[in-house]
Amino acid sequence: MKNVLGREIPEKIEGYKEVTPFKGAFAEDGEKTIKSVKVKTVKPEDSKVLNSIEEALDKVEIKDGMTISFHHHLRNGDYVLNMVVDTIAKRGIKDLTIAASSIFPAHAPLVEHIKSGVVTGVYANYMSGPVARAISLGLLKKPAVMHTHGGRARAIESGDLHIDVAFIAAPTSDTYGNINGVEGPAACGSLGYAAPDAEYADKVVAVTDNLVPYPACPIEISQHHVDYVVKVESIGDPKGIVSGTTKITKDPVGLKIAKMASQVIKASGLVKDGFSFQTGAGGTSLAVAAELKEIMKKEEVVGSFAAGGVTGYIVEMLEEGLFRNIFDVQCFDLKAVDSYKNNPKHQGMSASMYGNPHNKGCVANNLDVMILGATEIDTDFNVNVTTGSDGIIMGGSGGHSDTAAGAKLAIVVTNLMKARLPIIKDRVTTVTTPGESIDVIVTERGIAVNPNRKDLMEKLQNTNLPVMTIEELKDMAEKITGKPNAIELTDEVVAVVEYRDGTVIDVVRKPVI
Amino acid sequence: MKNVLGREIPEKIEGYKEVTPFKGAFAEDGEKTIKSVKVKTVKPEDSKVLNSIEEALDKVEIKDGMTISFHHHLRNGDYVLNMVVDTIAKRGIKDLTIAASSIFPAHAPLVEHIKSGVVTGVYANYMSGPVARAISLGLLKKPAVMHTHGGRARAIESGDLHIDVAFIAAPTSDTYGNINGVEGPAACGSLGYAAPDAEYADKVVAVTDNLVPYPACPIEISQHHVDYVVKVESIGDPKGIVSGTTKITKDPVGLKIAKMASQVIKASGLVKDGFSFQTGAGGTSLAVAAELKEIMKKEEVVGSFAAGGVTGYIVEMLEEGLFRNIFDVQCFDLKAVDSYKNNPKHQGMSASMYGNPHNKGCVANNLDVMILGATEIDTDFNVNVTTGSDGIIMGGSGGHSDTAAGAKLAIVVTNLMKARLPIIKDRVTTVTTPGESIDVIVTERGIAVNPNRKDLMEKLQNTNLPVMTIEELKDMAEKITGKPNAIELTDEVVAVVEYRDGTVIDVVRKPVI
Repeated sequence: MKNVLGREIPEKIEGYKEVTPFKGAFAEDGEKTIKSVKVKTVKPEDSKVLNSIEEALDKVEIKDGMTISFHHHLRNGDYVLNMVVDTIAKRGIKDLTIAASSIFPAHAPLVEHIKSGVVTGVYANYMSGPVARAISLGLLKKPAVMHTHGGRARAIESGDLHIDVAFIAAPTSDTYGNINGVEGPAACGSLGYAAPDAEYADKVVAVTDNLVPYPACPIEISQHHVDYVVKVESIGDPKGIVSGTTKITKDPVGLKIAKMASQVIKASGLVKDGFSFQTGAGGTSLAVAAELKEIMKKEEVVGSFAAGGVTGYIVEMLEEGLFRNIFDVQCFDLKAVDSYKNNPKHQGMSASMYGNPHNKGCVANNLDVMILGATEIDTDFNVNVTTGSDGIIMGGSGGHSDTAAGAKLAIVVTNLMKARLPIIKDRVTTVTTPGESIDVIVTERGIAVNPNRKDLMEKLQNTNLPVMTIEELKDMAEKITGKPNAIELTDEVVAVVEYRDGTVIDVVRKPVI
Repeated sequence: MKNVLGREIPEKIEGYKEVTPFKGAFAEDGEKTIKSVKVKTVKPEDSKVLNSIEEALDKVEIKDGMTISFHHHLRNGDYVLNMVVDTIAKRGIKDLTIAASSIFPAHAPLVEHIKSGVVTGVYANYMSGPVARAISLGLLKKPAVMHTHGGRARAIESGDLHIDVAFIAAPTSDTYGNINGVEGPAACGSLGYAAPDAEYADKVVAVTDNLVPYPACPIEISQHHVDYVVKVESIGDPKGIVSGTTKITKDPVGLKIAKMASQVIKASGLVKDGFSFQTGAGGTSLAVAAELKEIMKKEEVVGSFAAGGVTGYIVEMLEEGLFRNIFDVQCFDLKAVDSYKNNPKHQGMSASMYGNPHNKGCVANNLDVMILGATEIDTDFNVNVTTGSDGIIMGGSGGHSDTAAGAKLAIVVTNLMKARLPIIKDRVTTVTTPGESIDVIVTERGIAVNPNRKDLMEKLQNTNLPVMTIEELKDMAEKITGKPNAIELTDEVVAVVEYRDGTVIDVVRKPVI
């Protein structure tokens, strides 16, 4: 069958729940049910501290077929996922599903566990590196399920994604399971993505290399959600967790795109007191923030909040009084960690509060402007950030679809061509975010406005910005690069791309390689 | 039937759920289920702000038989409960159940609504004043249900207490329902008791007199739990909300009891690094804190945490470095509010984290020493803080049973006689907290140790403290006052006293007046 975007979705996907095709960004809204949770009570004399992962596996009665979860705040420095899965594998356990909020190159050892049948299912909001490649090539028994950050919270809360055991990498935990991410050798700041796992998993195990006396404050994840605490030597490599600083691009093309994007934002009329903003940690995205900062200063605008994965650059804007608050689901650099720890205006948020479409209103709903990236865009404004030009998974939505749906103005900033390939295509390899959520695309050579945003089109026509149709933009690139050959794909579904509401927006098919 | 304490409990109580008799403080532990929750999703374009309570009643579709909830952080200054119930009453709605975490004299207008049948059920952890009197005299159609603070959280989370609509008095709320208690004319500090209502009610309405632009930070109750926000002129009278200062008693008897209690604590051997402590806001309780402070200073002990309803006196101990942290479910005075707002070592906790026996471990479990009051104590060490000597309800457990069950050393401090009546009786009018949770009773004339604490008895026998049996203590008082006449009670059950685990520890019967 075809979903509302015209993407061909199988009626039934072996190893995946019943298929509900995507029907539109808010088509599934209404009354929803949050699942019930089982809890084993803890008495005053009980101790939660265990001596090893082995002991934790005994306590949680790990067995074949279970789903175990991990959060990705330690990013490419994470040791916990490998440590736990390796230990489980040694027991001869099979058929595990790994529900990791993201998977990075550091998780390469998972490939062997996939090959051996220890791991047969994977959920992730983002994946890159050897595991993503192995999944793309069909090595995983069941198709992987790719969520958005908000969609993962929704799936966990609704019960669509049932977690048997959540293993929470804890930069600091006390002996009773109060966890924070701001102290310890692997300090990473906000633990927003781990919050749903802690609240809704059957069993919750904190894995820490900084076990401290009770109570550890501040508390990001509370003792009353944690069953056990395991002390290990190290939960991660600080070098892979946070970068020292995140930097604005020096590439003149990136800077040009950023300048144009900032002019679009200004023309939109949204830059006024109470303005809210989110951007990624990429060089061009940060350059947009730098341009925006000058506009805000000049016009003496005080914004309400900046949100997101947070960088030092956004922290500077808070400290300069350009925003009243920051909402932080994840810290990208040390300056962000430090601010999150010390500045009460820098507020944490859970993944659900950030982007879950089925709660009583997420932060993404309140965004004025969101700056997004793209690997491919089609002439319906659908964006792919999931697969590369070779059809291999190299990313995923993360918060892309969540913020695009929520923001009043969702801007994709991208070079018109990358590696001699045009970015705009008739048809993207994979739809990550539906075109209805994307308002405008800014490239170095031209700007295309979504035809459903006539109001924005009118505003931009009063500027000197090079506004054109998306087809014109596509033709412009193709004149330089030629029309690229389509990737050849097999029929085999290697991953299901779930929209944030749990419907299927697309599938990833194994490429012919 | 009789429960394990020998209290006569009817097999069936009209208007109350199925009776499960109390079997012991931890008899109901094990695997528990937290209820599922219904949520109506909120889209980016939706507004939550309503113009009046009337409009909120329309939106939540208020109707006969519903249960509506309130928190008591505004204490005797609260306007919200009366405002909401009066407005509902004007619609001709009947048969409401009021689930208020506590009820105060300021809620006197509820008596008329009870008489008229608008209100036919009441849940509360504590009640005093005209409503408590009206209920004691049998005016409420169904028996009231009296919870502990932790037990109320448990009841809400388990579904035993289903809340249709929670009305949350919000000292500050933004337009999207982010709530805090630290700003605004009715600032009261921690909103810990309101947390379960916000998380598990079908509908949640924030009622505020300080509506601020989005986002209001810090966030105590998050936007993703709040359906609607109503602006009203005033939510409460600051004079009734927090006292300017809470003071240590000047009464020499109280001071003597405090001194003796501190000696008991010292002799217990618990005063060492990592020591944890909770006491109430009464003058004698604070005097114990003052004595303890001197011991801690002298012995150079740094405690882990102080918990509770928090007073300025405890804040001073934090600021002097005698405790590393405070856990705060409720602020009793302005100094506590100020500290909670500004000192990151002063942590909020929800009612569930504070005292819920059926989560993965509450803060009360980690208490070393708890200082408690009593209206009556029996020779089995059962404590009554629910009914007065006339059989009329004048209090309730609040956190009494929760902390007594959790603490390693639960000390009741009380005058041996009050208003010429002995405190120790053969049989208390109402059991609030079971004797198994009480370790020692300290009066100005003698100290009685629970016989099941032989270890403590031995330690105290090495001191000069006047240790005796509880029967000796009782006789001592009766020699002065004479043996008081028993109160005459009818068979009519006017309130059910639920232990924190949801079993029936006692019932309150209407007195003959």
